[in-house]
Amino acid sequence: MRGYFKSPVTYCEIHPEQKCMSREIKFPLVAVNFKTYRESTGEYALHLARMAEEVSVKTGVCIAVAPQLVDISKVVATVNNTPVFAQHLDPYDPGPYTGHVSIESVKQAGATGSLVNHSEHMLKISEIDLIVRKMRNLGLNSLVCANTAQVSAAVAALEPNIIAIEPPELIGSGIPVSKAKPEIVTDTVSLIQKVKPNIPVLCGAGIGKGEDASAAIRLGTKGVLVSSGVVKAQDPKQVLLDLARSVTI
Amino acid sequence: MRGYFKSPVTYCEIHPEQKCMSREIKFPLVAVNFKTYRESTGEYALHLARMAEEVSVKTGVCIAVAPQLVDISKVVATVNNTPVFAQHLDPYDPGPYTGHVSIESVKQAGATGSLVNHSEHMLKISEIDLIVRKMRNLGLNSLVCANTAQVSAAVAALEPNIIAIEPPELIGSGIPVSKAKPEIVTDTVSLIQKVKPNIPVLCGAGIGKGEDASAAIRLGTKGVLVSSGVVKAQDPKQVLLDLARSVTI
Amino acid sequence: MRGYFKSPVTYCEIHPEQKCMSREIKFPLVAVNFKTYRESTGEYALHLARMAEEVSVKTGVCIAVAPQLVDISKVVATVNNTPVFAQHLDPYDPGPYTGHVSIESVKQAGATGSLVNHSEHMLKISEIDLIVRKMRNLGLNSLVCANTAQVSAAVAALEPNIIAIEPPELIGSGIPVSKAKPEIVTDTVSLIQKVKPNIPVLCGAGIGKGEDASAAIRLGTKGVLVSSGVVKAQDPKQVLLDLARSVTI
Amino acid sequence: MRGYFKSPVTYCEIHPEQKCMSREIKFPLVAVNFKTYRESTGEYALHLARMAEEVSVKTGVCIAVAPQLVDISKVVATVNNTPVFAQHLDPYDPGPYTGHVSIESVKQAGATGSLVNHSEHMLKISEIDLIVRKMRNLGLNSLVCANTAQVSAAVAALEPNIIAIEPPELIGSGIPVSKAKPEIVTDTVSLIQKVKPNIPVLCGAGIGKGEDASAAIRLGTKGVLVSSGVVKAQDPKQVLLDLARSVTI
Repeated sequence: MRGYFKSPVTYCEIHPEQKCMSREIKFPLVAVNFKTYRESTGEYALHLARMAEEVSVKTGVCIAVAPQLVDISKVVATVNNTPVFAQHLDPYDPGPYTGHVSIESVKQAGATGSLVNHSEHMLKISEIDLIVRKMRNLGLNSLVCANTAQVSAAVAALEPNIIAIEPPELIGSGIPVSKAKPEIVTDTVSLIQKVKPNIPVLCGAGIGKGEDASAAIRLGTKGVLVSSGVVKAQDPKQVLLDLARSVTI
Repeated sequence: MRGYFKSPVTYCEIHPEQKCMSREIKFPLVAVNFKTYRESTGEYALHLARMAEEVSVKTGVCIAVAPQLVDISKVVATVNNTPVFAQHLDPYDPGPYTGHVSIESVKQAGATGSLVNHSEHMLKISEIDLIVRKMRNLGLNSLVCANTAQVSAAVAALEPNIIAIEPPELIGSGIPVSKAKPEIVTDTVSLIQKVKPNIPVLCGAGIGKGEDASAAIRLGTKGVLVSSGVVKAQDPKQVLLDLARSVTI
Repeated sequence: MRGYFKSPVTYCEIHPEQKCMSREIKFPLVAVNFKTYRESTGEYALHLARMAEEVSVKTGVCIAVAPQLVDISKVVATVNNTPVFAQHLDPYDPGPYTGHVSIESVKQAGATGSLVNHSEHMLKISEIDLIVRKMRNLGLNSLVCANTAQVSAAVAALEPNIIAIEPPELIGSGIPVSKAKPEIVTDTVSLIQKVKPNIPVLCGAGIGKGEDASAAIRLGTKGVLVSSGVVKAQDPKQVLLDLARSVTI
Repeated sequence: MRGYFKSPVTYCEIHPEQKCMSREIKFPLVAVNFKTYRESTGEYALHLARMAEEVSVKTGVCIAVAPQLVDISKVVATVNNTPVFAQHLDPYDPGPYTGHVSIESVKQAGATGSLVNHSEHMLKISEIDLIVRKMRNLGLNSLVCANTAQVSAAVAALEPNIIAIEPPELIGSGIPVSKAKPEIVTDTVSLIQKVKPNIPVLCGAGIGKGEDASAAIRLGTKGVLVSSGVVKAQDPKQVLLDLARSVTI
């Protein structure tokens, strides 16, 4: 059930006894989207990233964090073995693009990947194509989100590194997609399988307990994308521990 | 080289001796995007649609027209055997959506299909998914445009009725995609083939002569999507004749 | 309380005994936004426009209608003395703008004005500037919507023909802005007064009864912008009669 | 010609002998938009910010810098007396807004203001209203850009702290707005004067020499907004010195 992923960034042989000791993506994966919650901004972002790293070291499960843009460089300076993702990138090379997020600036800040097309920041199909391509050229991991199984299959044709299926109506609901709509997850896995069989699939929306994560793995995913279930939890570290232990089943 | 297409609207057996005698889509197809040119607005739109129908009757080749929204009902009333497409739809059901284009309103106006995601009006992948789905339910033909071969493959996963590949840099250039970038067309055809082999592919951008159209057919397409090459021609009818005769090779 | 408006289109002296006998805007004004409701699409649009004209002839109060783009030309052909507005325009001259709404196409279809920046289709400030300017050059009436008193004052600086204040949270609510939030209406009127004192102000959101309309007039507006209160009423003609009689107080 | 600005952040009495010794905005102002140029990203951003501070200390003229989001916290840690602006903000409070820029996150990162509605990232009028309001509540300086004199007057009604007029066609052109289109600058100053007389006006686009800056001041502005003229100069520090000396005339 556990697999390793040839990250475009670097690739290290992961031995069984070895823990996650670089910013490399390893599966199963728990990815934590910090969104723009107060509980994950500024100092809280650093605190949450430290917790993620502690849980990762303890369990050997890779936990990626996606803080806000302004917090990326501080998070990178705070944790050493945790992949740090942006939440959004614009499809631009360096140039006169005031207020946009150039992919290079995010790479220089130390991020090793980015969410793309999250349901709270959806993109044009031509932009996703361009972003995934530019990220590949810069050695960044693209985690493209999709709201339906069909959209998942569509974005698979663009060959991102990871795809996450998240039905928007369940995001932030506390109702886990892996239990409430398991058929969306299995449809996604099987449709992507036909287009590009090697792309790992995560699922998200409403995930907040270990049993939601293990259900996700049983449906064929390689991990989970979580947000409020961790960020707004009373004890985020405990939730992260629960999730990390459950994705390895 | 000539094929017939099971339109979701109606399906009629087309016999060899039969001309295009309904609003049915038939391949090879010449689709004419009127854009918002002065030469294809209002009275000119009706004039151009009449020309398209005359050429279609004369050659037996199906010619679809895509006038502006305000002109659709008049064009529908002017031509009888010509498929009339919208240029854009919004993914909305009837409701409180001021200024948007509900799919139902376009169907009630008599259109039998629509362009979707034209490079001058690109859409989010989730919107394309929703629009294609809603058009299918209403029996409308979806002609989804794509700017790269990869995007073509992506939209194929959403199962539109027709896909058109148009590299934006050649649109309106007078440099035909089928001659300047034949590999984009063949890549598109072969990538779509792997995802959904039955979706007919058109190509567009810079097409204005019969030889551009016959080159397109030889590259594996089922027709062409044209605009300024016809609309802004000194003699649009002659260009249409030339194109129609060339797509049948 | 009743006033006349120098329309940029034409200007006719309206004598007391004279009814609204052209597509000219006259104040007080009842403007009916058809949105994309099923009850105001296609044949229903024509029916509703006819009712508006009957009520206008009967009461002498100007009633403008704003059907969907595909219905504009049919509505124009159906009513003779009713101003017909689009619901949205794009800031484009004729050209290669697939799927967009060129201002000229709407004028050619017979519309004499358009809503701009409705809260269901908000625009960039630079777009509003361009649209209002282009409409003025083409002799079309611009009715710019605003969601707050401050935004109303801002758009006043662009010198549209009419401004409508509509707090989005009350739109479609059945709770009339003129009764629930009278201070928003009076603030709007007084802020616009300071910037451009001659621009007539309408108010909208939740208006469905005569008493809502007369309350609006008492707050300093020159009329109302209505939608579901009329379109989805059991007896739209009765509601229109009630509104028309109430705006003259 | 020199004036001081009651920043909403803090206010310090500036004595004649005193240099710019805080992150306070002081007029005349030279604001440097880093855009997403390679020459102003990452380490280069810090280098450029240091230069700005040195020139400010030397000349006593306030120089604000607007680096990319990912670089804000490092720039804040590098310079002490330089106002640091974001290039764009989204109108969101903390919450589930993946990939967006919450105003609070930017404040926590140490920025004291932000560009708003730059012509490379234009916003809806309702968004500008909301952003300016939220920035005011958080004590951040809003510098709203406008592309025409009319748009400048419109945004003045929203009462931002500073307005910058930048005709897009001159941005990055090397042709200074203050010399090529002085009437746009004077129109802007006089239109804003009528709406909100106390808002300081900057001008930008094509500014790269001291004489462009002094021309701007003579036209009634309180400073300049520059970008490529500094960022892509062979000797940015020399250009900054030239500009700083010229705005005081």
